[in-house]
Amino acid sequence: MVDQPHRPIGKSALQLVLATSEEQEALVETIESAGYQTCLGKTGSMELQKVVSAIETAAKRQGLIDQSLYREMHALYHAILEAVQGVTRGQAQLGDVMRTVGLKFVIVRGIAYENQAEGEWIAVALYGTIGAPVRGLEHETAGLGINHI
Amino acid sequence: MVDQPHRPIGKSALQLVLATSEEQEALVETIESAGYQTCLGKTGSMELQKVVSAIETAAKRQGLIDQSLYREMHALYHAILEAVQGVTRGQAQLGDVMRTVGLKFVIVRGIAYENQAEGEWIAVALYGTIGAPVRGLEHETAGLGINHI
Amino acid sequence: MVDQPHRPIGKSALQLVLATSEEQEALVETIESAGYQTCLGKTGSMELQKVVSAIETAAKRQGLIDQSLYREMHALYHAILEAVQGVTRGQAQLGDVMRTVGLKFVIVRGIAYENQAEGEWIAVALYGTIGAPVRGLEHETAGLGINHI
Amino acid sequence: MVDQPHRPIGKSALQLVLATSEEQEALVETIESAGYQTCLGKTGSMELQKVVSAIETAAKRQGLIDQSLYREMHALYHAILEAVQGVTRGQAQLGDVMRTVGLKFVIVRGIAYENQAEGEWIAVALYGTIGAPVRGLEHETAGLGINHI
Amino acid sequence: MVDQPHRPIGKSALQLVLATSEEQEALVETIESAGYQTCLGKTGSMELQKVVSAIETAAKRQGLIDQSLYREMHALYHAILEAVQGVTRGQAQLGDVMRTVGLKFVIVRGIAYENQAEGEWIAVALYGTIGAPVRGLEHETAGLGINHI
Amino acid sequence: MVDQPHRPIGKSALQLVLATSEEQEALVETIESAGYQTCLGKTGSMELQKVVSAIETAAKRQGLIDQSLYREMHALYHAILEAVQGVTRGQAQLGDVMRTVGLKFVIVRGIAYENQAEGEWIAVALYGTIGAPVRGLEHETAGLGINHI
Ligand SMILES: [Mg+2]
Ligand SMILES: [Mg+2]
Ligand SMILES: [Mg+2]
Ligand SMILES: [Mg+2]
Ligand SMILES: [Mg+2]
Ligand SMILES: [Mg+2]
Repeated sequence: MVDQPHRPIGKSALQLVLATSEEQEALVETIESAGYQTCLGKTGSMELQKVVSAIETAAKRQGLIDQSLYREMHALYHAILEAVQGVTRGQAQLGDVMRTVGLKFVIVRGIAYENQAEGEWIAVALYGTIGAPVRGLEHETAGLGINHI
Repeated sequence: MVDQPHRPIGKSALQLVLATSEEQEALVETIESAGYQTCLGKTGSMELQKVVSAIETAAKRQGLIDQSLYREMHALYHAILEAVQGVTRGQAQLGDVMRTVGLKFVIVRGIAYENQAEGEWIAVALYGTIGAPVRGLEHETAGLGINHI
Repeated sequence: MVDQPHRPIGKSALQLVLATSEEQEALVETIESAGYQTCLGKTGSMELQKVVSAIETAAKRQGLIDQSLYREMHALYHAILEAVQGVTRGQAQLGDVMRTVGLKFVIVRGIAYENQAEGEWIAVALYGTIGAPVRGLEHETAGLGINHI
Repeated sequence: MVDQPHRPIGKSALQLVLATSEEQEALVETIESAGYQTCLGKTGSMELQKVVSAIETAAKRQGLIDQSLYREMHALYHAILEAVQGVTRGQAQLGDVMRTVGLKFVIVRGIAYENQAEGEWIAVALYGTIGAPVRGLEHETAGLGINHI
Repeated sequence: MVDQPHRPIGKSALQLVLATSEEQEALVETIESAGYQTCLGKTGSMELQKVVSAIETAAKRQGLIDQSLYREMHALYHAILEAVQGVTRGQAQLGDVMRTVGLKFVIVRGIAYENQAEGEWIAVALYGTIGAPVRGLEHETAGLGINHI
Repeated sequence: MVDQPHRPIGKSALQLVLATSEEQEALVETIESAGYQTCLGKTGSMELQKVVSAIETAAKRQGLIDQSLYREMHALYHAILEAVQGVTRGQAQLGDVMRTVGLKFVIVRGIAYENQAEGEWIAVALYGTIGAPVRGLEHETAGLGINHI
């Protein structure tokens, strides 16, 4: 029987991306004690390419992903793209449609199902603002991507 | 100067949709004391139509939306569709591509910017699972839609 | 030199689909005297399939399209789909996302460029309302598709 | 009961964007005497960003939109994006897929429903040509976006 | 160094889906001697759901996928969806936009990179016809999806 | 009765784009003896624009398309865009979502149906790799677009 564990990987990523800097440390500890690895960062740009790149780079630098293995990069890449869909809601575009984002991102990796044979999964959560390239002309946005790794 | 208030509307909706039933009551109180109205519910289906409909119905029944005003229904509808994009990540389809969802939803409505002239906004947050119509063959999914009302 | 003729095919289709029943007859005459064939109709449904089908059937019945030739059906089909994109704006879906349309449609066919070698083109214009399946909870919508035939 | 007024906002915008320079003045007068504000302009580019920006700038300069209010900018922005969907029919992209547009645009703002409580709405209509970046290798295109404001 | 093997997984799947029944047997042998598992089938429908389901069922019945492991089903599912994008080219829809498909499908699974640490990958290739639900009013279509498993 | 000929245009294009340089010459001959014209080339870029442009330029230079006729350019353009959908599977974007392609392309043009009145059709087949802008971090991809000309 395949079941969600007590601490779901996607919820962990979303909670961490929503956490204030004060809440962050304790939450990372809780998530990591559930067997997950975590990685946090910030990125902001009118170029979607830079958003994708910032998340990939953080994952590689913080050792969440083995960059010598394409299968790991591939799993992360599709999880990022899925999270970006939630942020852009219909057209995976930023500057091309005259908008910019300021985002926090969280990546969580680990055993996500009670059945150990399900292996490792990866979750990418994004949260921040999207709007015109003018301070204040923006509203919140979020996205979650999940993949097997 | 337009600024985010201390309690952002989207983050409120996301936190509430992630909350356990124990955490829910206190969080609703916190969010409502910040001047927002909230509405919670659950929906699960292979038909996207039923998901949209369940959220609309809850918003009308719980008085979050004045259903005699099209502009309120229109604001809610587009916020729902944007949240659905995060859940479906690319194709706003469920049964048509052989998948089903089990979702919690939260709607939050109220003054979302410090500048009162910005008026009311609405946020729709979705969180749950998406996958094959077989128990366990599913992973988490989330979405957030925001609109002026 | 390839140039637009005095009466562009797409503008003709859009003007006709916007015309009142009083304006219609004179406008059809003007458009047809410019060498075009025209076809008008109405369709309304929560099923996109019925919208596509209604336009195809009208084109066949009114002889605008030779239904024994796939290339003519193919040209019309893609022009319809492009017009539907304007109507649905992002997701070519109606009932699946809990909305319905009431549309007038116009098809115009004929030589559309001054260079006769450009041959015949086809334009499909749609105009009407889209919204919740409740009278009044709807706003206007339009679309234009153009193809060589 | 919510009803369309005698002069629908979307049809007004479409008729004005289709009007010749001779017809324009009288039509603006008719539309404005129905209680609407109007704004017209032209834009052409291989960069979608410039199209969006040109429409936003015209709306701000001509006072159709209060640029100090995000809710007004937000309403306009989504109306523009919806109109762009009609123009691009499936992929909101221009130069990236090697095509360019030459467009007239019209924005109409005002009370659009008989029920005054429905408040103000905004319509963005686009009409022009789309095609290869070579003169003559192009066909007509149009789009309509509508939003509450 | 990560390199494509002598027999790429995607090309194998495409060649097999294009093969005549006479060519099929020898090609399966060649592909399987390169260390891949293969699975072939046919499906035709106006319902996309049935297409997805037919491919999943064949993969399970022929033992290409361990249906007790969600990660295997998940890898296959996304590979199918990607192949469907090639078949539908823009809108993952069939009957909803009044069209039907008749498809051959091939699934290939195995070590796809020289670096054994890249593990197993899966390729789904589709080839057949798409068109109106009338015999002959159709043209060819194809798609390829690839995923790590 | 409209029927597929012995050598389908799309399958011809796909087989040729999959052929090794040794197989190519004989296959071109077979396809051309079936009455088709063919054109082959290679293109690689992070800019989708360059991919589209490379295919258009090859078609013009090799005389497969009469570039003085917009209807021929239009038919080719939409066939290219449809093939690109198969390659990009959901978002017709490359560098914007931090990926690059290395592609072979084949264009085939000619009578594709037994009924000569169906006239000429055009097929565009793409095959190669897509992935991160790092050698080896890529998998195969393919697309097929077909249009009447
Ligand atoms: Mg998934
Ligand atoms: Mg928005
Ligand atoms: Mg076109
Ligand atoms: Mg709307
Ligand atoms: Mg991939
Ligand atoms: Mg077609």
